[in-house]
Amino acid sequence: MCRWMAWLGQPVLIEELLFKSPHGIVDQSLHARMGAEPTNGDGFGLGWYGTGEGPGVYRSVSPAWGDPNLHELAAHVESPLFMTHVRAAIGSPVQETNCHPFRRGNWLFVHNGFIADFHLLRRDLMLAIAPDLFADVQGSTDTEVVFHLALTSGLEEDPIGALERTVGLIEETARRHGVTDAVQASFGVSDGESLWAVRYATNGDARSLFASSDADAIRHLYPDNPRFQRLTEDDRLIVSEPFSDLPGVWHEIPEATAAIVRRGGVLEKQPFQPTTDAGLTAGADAT
Amino acid sequence: MCRWMAWLGQPVLIEELLFKSPHGIVDQSLHARMGAEPTNGDGFGLGWYGTGEGPGVYRSVSPAWGDPNLHELAAHVESPLFMTHVRAAIGSPVQETNCHPFRRGNWLFVHNGFIADFHLLRRDLMLAIAPDLFADVQGSTDTEVVFHLALTSGLEEDPIGALERTVGLIEETARRHGVTDAVQASFGVSDGESLWAVRYATNGDARSLFASSDADAIRHLYPDNPRFQRLTEDDRLIVSEPFSDLPGVWHEIPEATAAIVRRGGVLEKQPFQPTTDAGLTAGADAT
Amino acid sequence: MCRWMAWLGQPVLIEELLFKSPHGIVDQSLHARMGAEPTNGDGFGLGWYGTGEGPGVYRSVSPAWGDPNLHELAAHVESPLFMTHVRAAIGSPVQETNCHPFRRGNWLFVHNGFIADFHLLRRDLMLAIAPDLFADVQGSTDTEVVFHLALTSGLEEDPIGALERTVGLIEETARRHGVTDAVQASFGVSDGESLWAVRYATNGDARSLFASSDADAIRHLYPDNPRFQRLTEDDRLIVSEPFSDLPGVWHEIPEATAAIVRRGGVLEKQPFQPTTDAGLTAGADAT
Amino acid sequence: MCRWMAWLGQPVLIEELLFKSPHGIVDQSLHARMGAEPTNGDGFGLGWYGTGEGPGVYRSVSPAWGDPNLHELAAHVESPLFMTHVRAAIGSPVQETNCHPFRRGNWLFVHNGFIADFHLLRRDLMLAIAPDLFADVQGSTDTEVVFHLALTSGLEEDPIGALERTVGLIEETARRHGVTDAVQASFGVSDGESLWAVRYATNGDARSLFASSDADAIRHLYPDNPRFQRLTEDDRLIVSEPFSDLPGVWHEIPEATAAIVRRGGVLEKQPFQPTTDAGLTAGADAT
Repeated sequence: MCRWMAWLGQPVLIEELLFKSPHGIVDQSLHARMGAEPTNGDGFGLGWYGTGEGPGVYRSVSPAWGDPNLHELAAHVESPLFMTHVRAAIGSPVQETNCHPFRRGNWLFVHNGFIADFHLLRRDLMLAIAPDLFADVQGSTDTEVVFHLALTSGLEEDPIGALERTVGLIEETARRHGVTDAVQASFGVSDGESLWAVRYATNGDARSLFASSDADAIRHLYPDNPRFQRLTEDDRLIVSEPFSDLPGVWHEIPEATAAIVRRGGVLEKQPFQPTTDAGLTAGADAT
Repeated sequence: MCRWMAWLGQPVLIEELLFKSPHGIVDQSLHARMGAEPTNGDGFGLGWYGTGEGPGVYRSVSPAWGDPNLHELAAHVESPLFMTHVRAAIGSPVQETNCHPFRRGNWLFVHNGFIADFHLLRRDLMLAIAPDLFADVQGSTDTEVVFHLALTSGLEEDPIGALERTVGLIEETARRHGVTDAVQASFGVSDGESLWAVRYATNGDARSLFASSDADAIRHLYPDNPRFQRLTEDDRLIVSEPFSDLPGVWHEIPEATAAIVRRGGVLEKQPFQPTTDAGLTAGADAT
Repeated sequence: MCRWMAWLGQPVLIEELLFKSPHGIVDQSLHARMGAEPTNGDGFGLGWYGTGEGPGVYRSVSPAWGDPNLHELAAHVESPLFMTHVRAAIGSPVQETNCHPFRRGNWLFVHNGFIADFHLLRRDLMLAIAPDLFADVQGSTDTEVVFHLALTSGLEEDPIGALERTVGLIEETARRHGVTDAVQASFGVSDGESLWAVRYATNGDARSLFASSDADAIRHLYPDNPRFQRLTEDDRLIVSEPFSDLPGVWHEIPEATAAIVRRGGVLEKQPFQPTTDAGLTAGADAT
Repeated sequence: MCRWMAWLGQPVLIEELLFKSPHGIVDQSLHARMGAEPTNGDGFGLGWYGTGEGPGVYRSVSPAWGDPNLHELAAHVESPLFMTHVRAAIGSPVQETNCHPFRRGNWLFVHNGFIADFHLLRRDLMLAIAPDLFADVQGSTDTEVVFHLALTSGLEEDPIGALERTVGLIEETARRHGVTDAVQASFGVSDGESLWAVRYATNGDARSLFASSDADAIRHLYPDNPRFQRLTEDDRLIVSEPFSDLPGVWHEIPEATAAIVRRGGVLEKQPFQPTTDAGLTAGADAT
């Protein structure tokens, strides 16, 4: 199981959320806090918007907790919008090109979950990627294929719709191969302006996903952090697992739901409904 | 440009050839000895047969010259048959899954050279890989695709024939895309018993390839090495570039030629003729 | 907390003990099996005797569970005597020169535990290292200093005596600096012929240490492993934590005790008594 | 031989100087441009001032040219003052704690050159480090010891004086051990406000060191770079080797000279005269 978090709000030093938050994502990656979770020591990624063109991406196969370069970067880069991901590999190699977030142009993509029996489905799914995008798949994860299917399906125009078409296609392809419970996911997407987060599983029992409820709640979460005492209603956190035990701070995103965070702290929700009636067709030559 | 070498003969400590030979492959990887060659500092691989099941493979993105683990392994592992490769990346990421040799079962594969405009051809070539092998492609190099095409085309039964069919397919696919001079290659293949080496370029001007001429020559090559003074006619080296300036020691393998080394020091040669009349068809849905 | 294990017996493929044993050391390094233990993801080391001159040492800052090169090496190297160590860093950097085992000539050294307030004591302790050994300290761990103090103190002639003098010196130095509970340790030492293992803590509550009780017990431990069914009385395992829950298989080494394993499965024990009456004097110029 | 460069001026994206300058430092690290120079593929470091507290430091053992994280960081971090260093290891391990720049508080330190027979002198020199700084030496390079000697000797109050005392001490220690030509160096130092650069060798034949002559020259150096066309007299580059062949752009810093660059583009020079008459005494117990 992987974990991820995303921030959209006022510019913050990345370390405030990465290393200085109690039960933050790096802390989670090291300690099995709630019992059953394994360690997330198979790679780390950070994508951030700010200075320079498009997002920067730092990916490492070192565990996040012990990577001095990540500590340095987090302590010296400020960003109004960033996403981080810690990985627990299930099958595919521990290599930087398998670390999230994945990027294309201004877009970043992270995923907690998996495609069931991906080994069986990989070829058909890769065939459904737009031919001019095919050669850009650099690693061997299911997530990178999902991202390129979503790009093929119009992610840049309609992120939620593209993911609904992508998940629909995967479920259909899985069905054809006799694979059940095809998709288990929380997805995170950004273009540098907004954040989209999806919670969905084919079998209806999806990985958790939470949004910070409001700025006032975050001020309570970090009472000793002067920066957070200056929080406004513009600031939002999305996390695959809550950082803290404070009740009332986290707002659970329901199953089969997409959440959209826009500047100004706006949080909207809509149903997430995979669809197979359009666009993408997987592995035409394999039918 | 990459470089590779292979040994088939009596068991030797790997370091004898890797680190203790004048102008050996690691030395070549660091110093631009003949002028125009760039540094080979983008990864290293060693595949060896000996103890355990099938070949062992050590791959690292550290430059070979500074990797302490490689020095240790080479100093403490003996092998009668091994292949090493140093990489100078051209385009694809510096990651372990892009380092040669590639392996399947008992088979190892290395390549010095490239497929022209691979980015354009990658999808069609991957479609020509046998569907049940497709998901085993872990990295993003042209070489790993060539290896899986050759496996699809019968490498395990007829190594040279399979490579002739593979190169034929690549050339035909390139032609369809308007890509000229498609293949530039010296290939090395082994199953743990024999070694196959191919020198071929579409445009007739292939990367160099040499075989050690005979045991007597090698004894002259290492006059101070007691181990090599015990060399017999059973021992052969194949190298993409000669280790030494001693005249008479190296035997150049001609253009468009396959060399086969068998136990007992047997060296046979045959023409290498790409063919398109059988088996493989690339990217049928893309025609 | 680190963990280590050592094998002395018939030659075995290293992977048999490293990756194929239930609750083996790599498995331990990933999962917090007994509750409070953190993850050991801050580096790994393997030292083995066999082919080549002296021991080979493989050290990596990747977590052991995800390092493909370690899997390859373990599957293709056989050894009659080896030691492995997984690290959970406490303060000093995650770098290869901080990974155990440490080596000098034929000697290997591993340590689970720590020197209290090492930052305060480091200078005085390094001053007590023999001047001609001083420059060989490459990393920044307490263990590497302990090893060089033991070498200074005669490790190669009398391993247990040298460690008693070393621990005595550390305790005395600590006392001078007002540091209590100076040493917490299980040490492992080998010269390629025998194994020495020490369990000791200044405060009398030392890290655990176990020896396999006898070959018959090991045969019960691995009922489905044909290799272990061939075990003889010559084979012994020393582990910082037991691999398995089978009662009767592991023999606990008492507090303040040194165990010596010799070829033929011989296991001897003797009290471990730190001494300050000889040889070493720390940081004379600092008194 | 290592190489380094430093920038003090208006904030620039680090990649402008690191990757986008013809014959820049990364390009130098890969290609042997002027003939005899070896490859600098044994690690890289970047220290930069800007956002966050004190300088950030990124260090990697990957060659600079192939490290994707370095490309990302350089493309997304802007800094008015930074130093970079590429390493060609001579003896000490390739590890991150051996990569320059070294840091303490606000201070950064880089070095091109070496201390002769450092193995012989290391102990005495480390004994001359202030006891409370001793435990902060994390790696095994001569440079880290030089830096801590300079800190001991007052670097933070008088950088040039402290380096004069440090070099004097090293030369004296070397003399005592019968080591000649003790110091070969160009040093770079910064506190985030100013830059100090020293060119000195005991034998009078020091590594090269250059300053950009003035903003007008830099504008000529990068005629197609709109950012540099906006250069003012405030901008200065210090480099161990010139980036370009344009005559008139680079100003050589003479032997045995210290250069000081202050905000506003001010460049001052003064003689660099090692001195032994004060403060530091090396290895008192070893005399």
